[in-house]
Amino acid sequence: MARRGDPACYSFRVNLEGILPPIPTPFSGDAIDHRGLAANVGRWMRTRLAGLVVLGSNGEAPLLDDRESDAAIETVRAHMPSGRTLIGGVGRESTAATIAAAKRAAGIGVDAVLVRTPSFYKNVMTSDAFVRHYTAVADASPAPVLLYNVSLFTGVNLLPDAVERLATHPNIIGIKESNADLVQLAETIARTPDHFVVLGGSAPTFYHALCAGADGGVLAIAGVIPDMCVELYDLVRRQQHGEALALQKRITPLGRLLGAVHGVAGLKYALDQTGYVGGSTRAPLGTVPPDAQRQIREQLTALGTLATR
Amino acid sequence: MARRGDPACYSFRVNLEGILPPIPTPFSGDAIDHRGLAANVGRWMRTRLAGLVVLGSNGEAPLLDDRESDAAIETVRAHMPSGRTLIGGVGRESTAATIAAAKRAAGIGVDAVLVRTPSFYKNVMTSDAFVRHYTAVADASPAPVLLYNVSLFTGVNLLPDAVERLATHPNIIGIKESNADLVQLAETIARTPDHFVVLGGSAPTFYHALCAGADGGVLAIAGVIPDMCVELYDLVRRQQHGEALALQKRITPLGRLLGAVHGVAGLKYALDQTGYVGGSTRAPLGTVPPDAQRQIREQLTALGTLATR
Amino acid sequence: MARRGDPACYSFRVNLEGILPPIPTPFSGDAIDHRGLAANVGRWMRTRLAGLVVLGSNGEAPLLDDRESDAAIETVRAHMPSGRTLIGGVGRESTAATIAAAKRAAGIGVDAVLVRTPSFYKNVMTSDAFVRHYTAVADASPAPVLLYNVSLFTGVNLLPDAVERLATHPNIIGIKESNADLVQLAETIARTPDHFVVLGGSAPTFYHALCAGADGGVLAIAGVIPDMCVELYDLVRRQQHGEALALQKRITPLGRLLGAVHGVAGLKYALDQTGYVGGSTRAPLGTVPPDAQRQIREQLTALGTLATR
Amino acid sequence: MARRGDPACYSFRVNLEGILPPIPTPFSGDAIDHRGLAANVGRWMRTRLAGLVVLGSNGEAPLLDDRESDAAIETVRAHMPSGRTLIGGVGRESTAATIAAAKRAAGIGVDAVLVRTPSFYKNVMTSDAFVRHYTAVADASPAPVLLYNVSLFTGVNLLPDAVERLATHPNIIGIKESNADLVQLAETIARTPDHFVVLGGSAPTFYHALCAGADGGVLAIAGVIPDMCVELYDLVRRQQHGEALALQKRITPLGRLLGAVHGVAGLKYALDQTGYVGGSTRAPLGTVPPDAQRQIREQLTALGTLATR
Repeated sequence: MARRGDPACYSFRVNLEGILPPIPTPFSGDAIDHRGLAANVGRWMRTRLAGLVVLGSNGEAPLLDDRESDAAIETVRAHMPSGRTLIGGVGRESTAATIAAAKRAAGIGVDAVLVRTPSFYKNVMTSDAFVRHYTAVADASPAPVLLYNVSLFTGVNLLPDAVERLATHPNIIGIKESNADLVQLAETIARTPDHFVVLGGSAPTFYHALCAGADGGVLAIAGVIPDMCVELYDLVRRQQHGEALALQKRITPLGRLLGAVHGVAGLKYALDQTGYVGGSTRAPLGTVPPDAQRQIREQLTALGTLATR
Repeated sequence: MARRGDPACYSFRVNLEGILPPIPTPFSGDAIDHRGLAANVGRWMRTRLAGLVVLGSNGEAPLLDDRESDAAIETVRAHMPSGRTLIGGVGRESTAATIAAAKRAAGIGVDAVLVRTPSFYKNVMTSDAFVRHYTAVADASPAPVLLYNVSLFTGVNLLPDAVERLATHPNIIGIKESNADLVQLAETIARTPDHFVVLGGSAPTFYHALCAGADGGVLAIAGVIPDMCVELYDLVRRQQHGEALALQKRITPLGRLLGAVHGVAGLKYALDQTGYVGGSTRAPLGTVPPDAQRQIREQLTALGTLATR
Repeated sequence: MARRGDPACYSFRVNLEGILPPIPTPFSGDAIDHRGLAANVGRWMRTRLAGLVVLGSNGEAPLLDDRESDAAIETVRAHMPSGRTLIGGVGRESTAATIAAAKRAAGIGVDAVLVRTPSFYKNVMTSDAFVRHYTAVADASPAPVLLYNVSLFTGVNLLPDAVERLATHPNIIGIKESNADLVQLAETIARTPDHFVVLGGSAPTFYHALCAGADGGVLAIAGVIPDMCVELYDLVRRQQHGEALALQKRITPLGRLLGAVHGVAGLKYALDQTGYVGGSTRAPLGTVPPDAQRQIREQLTALGTLATR
Repeated sequence: MARRGDPACYSFRVNLEGILPPIPTPFSGDAIDHRGLAANVGRWMRTRLAGLVVLGSNGEAPLLDDRESDAAIETVRAHMPSGRTLIGGVGRESTAATIAAAKRAAGIGVDAVLVRTPSFYKNVMTSDAFVRHYTAVADASPAPVLLYNVSLFTGVNLLPDAVERLATHPNIIGIKESNADLVQLAETIARTPDHFVVLGGSAPTFYHALCAGADGGVLAIAGVIPDMCVELYDLVRRQQHGEALALQKRITPLGRLLGAVHGVAGLKYALDQTGYVGGSTRAPLGTVPPDAQRQIREQLTALGTLATR
């Protein structure tokens, strides 16, 4: 927390402290539901969220084509005031395709691009390979780059030694670390300069990530319970650890249900229950089984956020 | 081997017994080198290979866009006689994009489409999800479908229970099983009908896969040493196990170097050394370090296939 | 922290809050060096440690026979005042042998017995099997039982659902959780009553474990830097999180070197450098390579604890 | 198969080709049932088994104390004719305790000792550590040493580079490789001399292990269906691969049930059903649930070996 120092630093132009939910992409049949997306953005803008992440893993980015991806970013940008931060996911398997997507996203007006690790050729995705990839992307991207490590989905791991080397690049401003490994998170923080932003991406360990020095969070549940997530962030900033831990315990079960357990389908179901537009996922993603729906509703009820119907 | 029975079966129209290399995609700068690709195909057609697989993992398929993918298939098809089998990789993360790619590939004239498991949302890629995905693809694809399991790259595993269910679909003719797990391979063979084709994709265990009942192989090294791979296949068919095992031992080191150890870059380097067009990979894939180059050349020399220069 | 409530609770008779190092067993040739062990205990008793753990993993317990084990406990007990807590490791693969060892240890005067999960027959070590094992041990042990989960060494994992069930047993007073998985730790704490003691056993995540509600720590480095570990514990108790995190960062590198990286041999080397009796390990454990010795000395110097020589 | 060459070699004095079951240790209450053990041995001696392995993983060796272990070996030796091979398990965590057990077993008259990898301190169990351990044991053991790799239980892996180095020791005659990884097995065979014996220990891949050059098998199911396992071995020796593969398929389900799925308890249950003395396991091992009992009986019925009752 509050690890920044040098106001001349490029990353200072992007406000990444606080809570930014990775928002889902609603569909209407086979197409993106731009009206629903805009409605959600409008509603989130009435909360205390620092900004939004569009086209992260929860945005079903790997299931969209380039044209759809660009259109989704445009819709979100159009409905956000300039004071809030918009991060756009642009990761692709090929370095060249990632650069092309980063340029298009910057043209649309994202404040930073989120670039997940390429991961198909796992056996050769060494730290050297990641450094080459991210350096090429950061050299070419008009918008600052946020690294993105999410081993649950990629099956590869962006290790602290690679992050340490990449943190020296003037156009790489931070990392979204979605792994729940606190030891690795702490090492990443220790080996990067204070102005390098580290955002936690795992809801069940968010309090612990903040304790370890994370600057904010990109949490799926923040789309459903935005102000509760901001409150947790503020409690740690104000050093109210007892209250913070108690709040973490309250939101952990929902974080788990919408994260590793049921994923995007669970998140969309929860949004539907709380007045947002969630809707269906794109195949091969499926639906949430009835039993899980019940569990999610129970947690929403416990948190007092179930929409009146 | 020779497990087929019913000549009326759809899969009989596609000859999948024997050896089919998954061919790399040569590049000239940023673009596909279609001339080099055609030259390679022409040379492979003068060997005893049963056919070719274009746009598998070794074809850098995840690094190509749709237009490039279609063009690569067209070039290969144009240089193959109709008697040889052409399999085209069309796997995408989304079911809809996979179907679209399968339709385009069928229009170009592939004999079958190879569909790797979607894998990004690993936590929800259950057997049920795979069955839904492949059923939708097989329902819509004009060309017969070959399943493709390659956990080294995908981080997910298409288990025998899912394959057993999918093998009943009239448009799913077989599986390319690239995992080296012989227990799983044997179980997959035991739980699928005789006409369901099982192709081994792991060079270091190819002899063992044939012993276990595999019908043929999709082996990266078959692009480099095609006739040696066909010879291994024939030895097992003729029950000459001593000679087969001896040949397997000779090719295993190269199989390992071009497989899990150095991947596509290693394969392209080996092709360059043997008179084919290999060339560079597309980033984030890199090059083969000098020490590995030496190891590959040693193996090629030991196998008597190093091109005279 | 401070989660206890009911003074009538059995666990209140054992003071487990604070820092207790798992002490190594020094050898003189093939035999235990009881004189060196006693000297170490005497020195630790002049620090602010809450007590000691003898015959944990760092005590090379799996390499000692029963006679040696009992003798080691006797020596330590004889040199500790009654106000400090002595925990004795008694885990064996068989339930019956564990019970026998617990009875002998209780006879010698340990305050509690530490029982690691049996782990050889991993495929059948389900939560049910663990509950049966620990219940039988707790029923028979005259001394209260502390569960012990250390997957790095055992390859099995004592999950929160098993711990929750075991926490209802009146003779099971807590758990030493040595895994670095904060999510699991938090879940274990959430699912057990306040009087159930949870001790963190991973030095690099100790601060985070305390944040998550752990009651104390069983840390290998506490044998080398006892007062620094007690200070970290006190800082969190006093809610001085900034100072606590800073101290955690200072000790993390040493914690890693003496933990997962070099293990017992590293710990013994560090003790030798700081005025304690460390010495050699018992085979198959080996020695610390010169390069690692240098790293350990660097960390000890940085922490100001290298003995003057 | 038939890879040996030099009749002067020490290992020639031990016949390790063929099938040797790892026999369970029957209990009567808390004590070993020596009468039942002797009865089983007598019955196995009327089959075509090459010999027996006492105190392997299936013998519950980690649950016995030294006195019980020695007594079990004595009973088995007393009921075996000298023409059959007796291998005795003597692995312990400490090198010294392993040596002591090897000396006692040699004194009782085992033909070779089976030494599983020490495994508690997994993080430092490198190939170098294994080479040191096994070299010390082989230097001191009066009986020849058989290495034993079983990652399912130990969580560590004895890699081909360590085996290659150990195979040069004159008192190390071979390895029992219980992992199902055929690639590693083939590499181990390729990197060791012909007289170094490689025994497969995984029933579901036994045919494949023989194809890969294994010299025989230490299979739990061979205690239940000894002659069927010998028949499979002979079929491969006679190059009747079709029949061998068919037989492998028939026994694979039982092999799986008595191996990774239900372990020792499953094996003992199956012995009880086929006229041997099986009985209960020692805690923390448990019993086989009714559903699994039914599955095991089904497989025994299918194999025609269910005892008439």
